[in-house]
Amino acid sequence: MNKGMIKHITGWVFILLGLVLLLPILVAVIYKENTWTAFLLTSVISTFIGILCIIRKPKNQTIYAKEGFSIVALSWIIIAVIGALPFLISGEISGFFNALFESASGFTTTGASVVDNVDALSKCILFWRSFMHWLGGMGVLVFIIAVIPLIGGGQNMHLMRAESPGPMVGKLMPKLRSTPMILYGIYFSMTVLEIIFLLFGGMPLFDAVLNSMATAGTGGFSMTNAGMSAYNTYCQLIISIFMILFGINFNVYFLILGKKIKDVLKNEEVRYYLIILISATIIIALNISSQFKSMGMAFHHALFQVASIMTTTGFSSVDFNLWPELSKTILIILMFIGACAGSTGGGIKVSRFIIVCKDAVNELSMLIHPRRVKVMKMDGKKIEKKTFHNVCAYLFVYMIIFIGSLLLISLNNYDFSTNFSAIAATMNNIGPGLNLVGPATSYSFLSDFSKFVLSFDMIAGRLELFPILLLFAPGTWKK
Amino acid sequence: MNKGMIKHITGWVFILLGLVLLLPILVAVIYKENTWTAFLLTSVISTFIGILCIIRKPKNQTIYAKEGFSIVALSWIIIAVIGALPFLISGEISGFFNALFESASGFTTTGASVVDNVDALSKCILFWRSFMHWLGGMGVLVFIIAVIPLIGGGQNMHLMRAESPGPMVGKLMPKLRSTPMILYGIYFSMTVLEIIFLLFGGMPLFDAVLNSMATAGTGGFSMTNAGMSAYNTYCQLIISIFMILFGINFNVYFLILGKKIKDVLKNEEVRYYLIILISATIIIALNISSQFKSMGMAFHHALFQVASIMTTTGFSSVDFNLWPELSKTILIILMFIGACAGSTGGGIKVSRFIIVCKDAVNELSMLIHPRRVKVMKMDGKKIEKKTFHNVCAYLFVYMIIFIGSLLLISLNNYDFSTNFSAIAATMNNIGPGLNLVGPATSYSFLSDFSKFVLSFDMIAGRLELFPILLLFAPGTWKK
Repeated sequence: MNKGMIKHITGWVFILLGLVLLLPILVAVIYKENTWTAFLLTSVISTFIGILCIIRKPKNQTIYAKEGFSIVALSWIIIAVIGALPFLISGEISGFFNALFESASGFTTTGASVVDNVDALSKCILFWRSFMHWLGGMGVLVFIIAVIPLIGGGQNMHLMRAESPGPMVGKLMPKLRSTPMILYGIYFSMTVLEIIFLLFGGMPLFDAVLNSMATAGTGGFSMTNAGMSAYNTYCQLIISIFMILFGINFNVYFLILGKKIKDVLKNEEVRYYLIILISATIIIALNISSQFKSMGMAFHHALFQVASIMTTTGFSSVDFNLWPELSKTILIILMFIGACAGSTGGGIKVSRFIIVCKDAVNELSMLIHPRRVKVMKMDGKKIEKKTFHNVCAYLFVYMIIFIGSLLLISLNNYDFSTNFSAIAATMNNIGPGLNLVGPATSYSFLSDFSKFVLSFDMIAGRLELFPILLLFAPGTWKK
Repeated sequence: MNKGMIKHITGWVFILLGLVLLLPILVAVIYKENTWTAFLLTSVISTFIGILCIIRKPKNQTIYAKEGFSIVALSWIIIAVIGALPFLISGEISGFFNALFESASGFTTTGASVVDNVDALSKCILFWRSFMHWLGGMGVLVFIIAVIPLIGGGQNMHLMRAESPGPMVGKLMPKLRSTPMILYGIYFSMTVLEIIFLLFGGMPLFDAVLNSMATAGTGGFSMTNAGMSAYNTYCQLIISIFMILFGINFNVYFLILGKKIKDVLKNEEVRYYLIILISATIIIALNISSQFKSMGMAFHHALFQVASIMTTTGFSSVDFNLWPELSKTILIILMFIGACAGSTGGGIKVSRFIIVCKDAVNELSMLIHPRRVKVMKMDGKKIEKKTFHNVCAYLFVYMIIFIGSLLLISLNNYDFSTNFSAIAATMNNIGPGLNLVGPATSYSFLSDFSKFVLSFDMIAGRLELFPILLLFAPGTWKK
């Protein structure tokens, strides 16, 4: 275990945090709020720790997968804790576990909140919440790789692999030094594009920036108590469309930039992602039609909610907790499916479900024709055994963490739907669940212990489980 | 596809049903009930169809896995339909889907009932319900293989494999012609033993026989409205113990008979089965202690309920729907885990969970030590790749059917806990769920369509999904 390099890279994470904390200060200055002290203090603390960590460059700069996973897991715990400090110092959120929950929810792009009265928050705290989404969506380590020259060769891959979501990122993404730079470029441009479209709809600039950042990261923190119902239908539609776009594998935009449209059309994950999205929208629209004045509005809100849940953003244009059971059940299932691999969205990912379904069909057909050997393919290429095994292990670990969390949360003695959907909504980085944790309420009523468990689930889910488990596995730290 | 042999063997299933339907007639005669006509009529119909099917012996008597699966699936649909006829003809259960639900629930050893007033049923109908459990527990085809000379060689294996629960039955069970005979011998002896123990506790003979049959098959139909609370603590304890015994892999009894005690102690599945059972009992006992007069009674009812749910029997000594959320959540998780492979219990099976957990641990340790190759072992033997793949495919298919059923059931517009637990309770062959389908209520209020879906889930779950899916796969019937 190369502890020197772990210290060094997490040191850069502290410094990066110190830097990004300057932006909310700017917002505070613009809006003449005195909350800027909280951010300045946090920034100074973070930068100071960071400098202490990087002051000595480690001799051995080689890192392997093990170090990559540990660095990423450790970094995300650090950013969750540091990110919580402005809430605490400013006093706008009281209690350490509340602040930690809000911060973890921000960076992991979950969007579950403990704030009951969002309207009472200062502008710079609101900005910080949405900015966390934007940073967390693409990945903090990816950002560091993009802007800070760290380590040479293919070693960055270990960091990117551990932080980027989806089963096959290591294979699909070109191992170029410039990859993270280009990814952040696409990400930034699309965010700006959304801001412009929202401004056209009459949304104030501040709202447009914050909502666009929250959409880009598929986060979902609302900046008003009214949520997305505060905006007009045009703005909601723009947000629906951008949520869907940010839920698509970024390799697709890579390919479009490279004018490889044929490869885009071959992409099975995007195809099924859109098929599931459209089917769910149609079924829900029909199911909820009686609750709306026109079929058009039913479709509008169905699309918004399906896009919001499937991309794991978690915005809500209406209180879907009041929808019929079929619609709610579809939304719960979409929570688990999630967005595309390599997008900013969370969940189990469409590609994993495709692999699972293909394997099930394969196994059935092998029972009928025992001698016929079938090769599982995706995008025209064979699915490697290693990939398949990884998907299985991921799902098994997912199940184990889910069951464990369910038991711990049930100590609260709330009903099963609340507990089940709370874990589904946090582990898949969505935000609102059902019943007591529905879109019209916050997570504030839960016990500190439950908030801690759910904060863990958010980080575990965002990092696709393995890094955070490895960090705590005794074997990782042995010689 | 050897359609001749399919017809021939399912013909024997009809005839067997015709024969076993004579037993309830005997009960009706003893208790001077006039419901015997319903059974006689059903018996005649079934035997007549059976004779038509077997009148011509097929020339080609070879069957493969494909035929084995189809025969088993088809047979179970037949027995569910024929088994429903006495309910309908006697008029004690009205409506085809009600009767089908009750019959499927009986044979699949689920024990979910649509009868609101069990006390009003006639003795021979009560007997038929419990007798279905007893027959279905060990398997109908296994019975046919045991008593009727059918086909030579190892071909019976295709039938046994398709009907017997658990991932590795084909490997563990010696391929002897006498195997099913010995299994039924053990089954019968243990049932008699339970009857004797219950008689000692002062339970009337009729009750003792019916409850023992329901325990043996891990069925769970209650013969009174009061359920198991109608009996004294001693009788409840005896039933707890026998439920646990019937949830153990029958190979263990096989080994004990062969005096291979060492091999029994090596059996990991039984060890984990008992560990889970005891841990769950302790946690629940502590959790519910305030609801009982003494700690002893809390333990007693915790053990009864844990044993009942984990072995997928579904008896209830108290209304566990009123227990705290933690206890209910543990019970829901136990529903999925289920009993040991090769027992009469249902669920996903402990051994599959062991394999899943071992794979998860393995994959994690491979991330830490990429070059170290670890072999997954169970009972000291290597877990074959084929077995692992089969477990994965089973779980994936399980998930797909579960999600599909959840969507269909949610059309009812009942709450999520009711829908979720109803499917968990039927697909895992348990019986009572939570909320509206809790132990104090019946499934009668559901729509016909939901009853049909749940009946399908019961049969699919009992046959471990693949046979029933293969039966409806177009590829099965192609040349």
